[in-house]
Amino acid sequence: MNKVIHQNRIKHLQKAMQAAHMDICLILDRENLLYYTGLEQVECMAAVIPREGQPQGTTLWLDLSWIQANCALEQIRGYHFPGKSIGESIVDIIKEYGYPDPIIGFERYFVGFGVYDTLRKNFNEQKFASAAEIIYRQRAIKEPDEIEKISCAAKAAIAAMAAAVAVIKPGVREIDIAAQAEWAAMKAGSQGTPFRTQIVSGNKTLLTHPFSDEKEVKAGEIVLLHIGARYQGYTAKLCRTVAVGVIPEEQRKIYSILREAQQACIEAMQPGRPVCEIDLAARQVIENYGYGHQFLDIIGYGVGLRQSEFYPMIGKPFRYSLERDMVVDVLLPSIYKPVVGGPRLTDTLWVNQDGVVNLTEYPRDLIQI
Amino acid sequence: MNKVIHQNRIKHLQKAMQAAHMDICLILDRENLLYYTGLEQVECMAAVIPREGQPQGTTLWLDLSWIQANCALEQIRGYHFPGKSIGESIVDIIKEYGYPDPIIGFERYFVGFGVYDTLRKNFNEQKFASAAEIIYRQRAIKEPDEIEKISCAAKAAIAAMAAAVAVIKPGVREIDIAAQAEWAAMKAGSQGTPFRTQIVSGNKTLLTHPFSDEKEVKAGEIVLLHIGARYQGYTAKLCRTVAVGVIPEEQRKIYSILREAQQACIEAMQPGRPVCEIDLAARQVIENYGYGHQFLDIIGYGVGLRQSEFYPMIGKPFRYSLERDMVVDVLLPSIYKPVVGGPRLTDTLWVNQDGVVNLTEYPRDLIQI
Repeated sequence: MNKVIHQNRIKHLQKAMQAAHMDICLILDRENLLYYTGLEQVECMAAVIPREGQPQGTTLWLDLSWIQANCALEQIRGYHFPGKSIGESIVDIIKEYGYPDPIIGFERYFVGFGVYDTLRKNFNEQKFASAAEIIYRQRAIKEPDEIEKISCAAKAAIAAMAAAVAVIKPGVREIDIAAQAEWAAMKAGSQGTPFRTQIVSGNKTLLTHPFSDEKEVKAGEIVLLHIGARYQGYTAKLCRTVAVGVIPEEQRKIYSILREAQQACIEAMQPGRPVCEIDLAARQVIENYGYGHQFLDIIGYGVGLRQSEFYPMIGKPFRYSLERDMVVDVLLPSIYKPVVGGPRLTDTLWVNQDGVVNLTEYPRDLIQI
Repeated sequence: MNKVIHQNRIKHLQKAMQAAHMDICLILDRENLLYYTGLEQVECMAAVIPREGQPQGTTLWLDLSWIQANCALEQIRGYHFPGKSIGESIVDIIKEYGYPDPIIGFERYFVGFGVYDTLRKNFNEQKFASAAEIIYRQRAIKEPDEIEKISCAAKAAIAAMAAAVAVIKPGVREIDIAAQAEWAAMKAGSQGTPFRTQIVSGNKTLLTHPFSDEKEVKAGEIVLLHIGARYQGYTAKLCRTVAVGVIPEEQRKIYSILREAQQACIEAMQPGRPVCEIDLAARQVIENYGYGHQFLDIIGYGVGLRQSEFYPMIGKPFRYSLERDMVVDVLLPSIYKPVVGGPRLTDTLWVNQDGVVNLTEYPRDLIQI
């Protein structure tokens, strides 16, 4: 672990905090802790970052010596649960910084209610602020070290896809295909799945968040393979569709439209281009074929510590621009047509000065078994 | 899915709500949704349970037809995100029930801040209540169907343990052992790991929440294998310790003390017995050997939809009793002695009229490689 990388990220965050008039920023979730402290093996920890000066961490006392040895923060204390909660320990640290009536920023959707409740009993709830935008915008621009880790995860995801496709045939259970995929990913260096493996078939392919179970694949069905891998905290994912035997003609057509739309989208991806224009390139293909009203408004997300980061999103409503060294996936949604819909494909793409590099390069046509 | 099982659980919950003077109970997390609605493939859904009458659900519109076909609730609506949030849809439903100034119960540590914020803008925050105790006490007593599912998960976890132990040798990476374990679990019917597989070696065994990475196992180290499996939402887990070659004498001694303490604990487990007495049976063994001050205050947890349920906990501070058809694990903690500590073992145990049945029966002595 290179402490300097993480300490520079904290300095970058502190500058953004100063611009936003935020006194304290709390880092509580696993992804942000990894990003700012370098710790992968982390649970029950918080980092408290003041707008100026040294940040401090607090962790479960049992893990203290490990955390001290493996963390970019210089000052860490242990809290002795159940005598003291992590929220109470955070309050101690904030008070020591001595800001009168501090403006405290955190990621509202990741702070547990217990910590929130402890904070509002000790500080002015009216001064609580959202740190989400600052943090996610910083995380969106990947450093070379991060691109490297995402690439490693991508290689493992590709290995998993190949292993999964190789065992698909009528009668095999989704879970058996998933077992093969996850094993191949781990043997190729993945440290576990970033989301529950979505290898699903038949009408389950229409669900937004399905996962593999004991359902058997049947001839005449499609199998959707949405596979992720993780390397040193960083994720990559790809999605492909397999036709098992003869599938309905409209499903085949929908896949080929999505394939064409993805290609149009990739060609439109240039640093500096508003993301809604990139979305439009894909959307026009879908609309030209008459499926526009069955297509969702967001077609891609940032990929990094999280498989779907909150910034950038590639979609119709967003005016901000794609930037160099963002990593995103396109194109996520299917054309949602009950009974018929379901085919999907997506890749993890790195935006660089020349356009995009597909980190999950794997044949993109409909796979026929 | 047997709708009657889940509908009976809702009736049981409604009785407990009436006793607690709660008007509405919100079910938002995946585990409780499975418990009360029967849905495994669920995300972005809520169930709203009134103290009397029919409960209602709300789900992402895309999944509505699937949810309607697979859910024990008779009334489900779809909310059309991003136009409407799940919190807003919940508010609509609660208002339709027409309780003036309702007492609304939910699990405070699982409700996202977004939903909480929407709720408090629409209802009296002073009337919000915790539903945690009602729900977790109900979940603690397992029905025959649940014991069966936990047993299936346990069989998969045992298969994973055997597969993992078989590949341990100096030079092998933790992640390769984990790959073997997870594959074997899935082939034996597991639908994925309930927690990140903890197959860790050397000084990582002292961490409270470690997971497998690229570290290589060395001769003279111990390997800790804490393995879980999941079947139809239900989990089981077991933990064993492997000595690779010659390990320090004190580590060997600590494992044998833990082994003896676990046995004493199992023998003390009888329905009706206060959990602090069960804890004491184990604790006295540890104290007799002089390690009492390095042993944690909680030595076991309920096991079911969650690998560590919030009720019961087997520990020093708790006065409630063990009951028939609880499923718990003992004995989780190590003796925390820096550098030396780390060995652990645990099993998933079903408490029945005769005492306990070990669902994860697998040799419990220190495994020597």
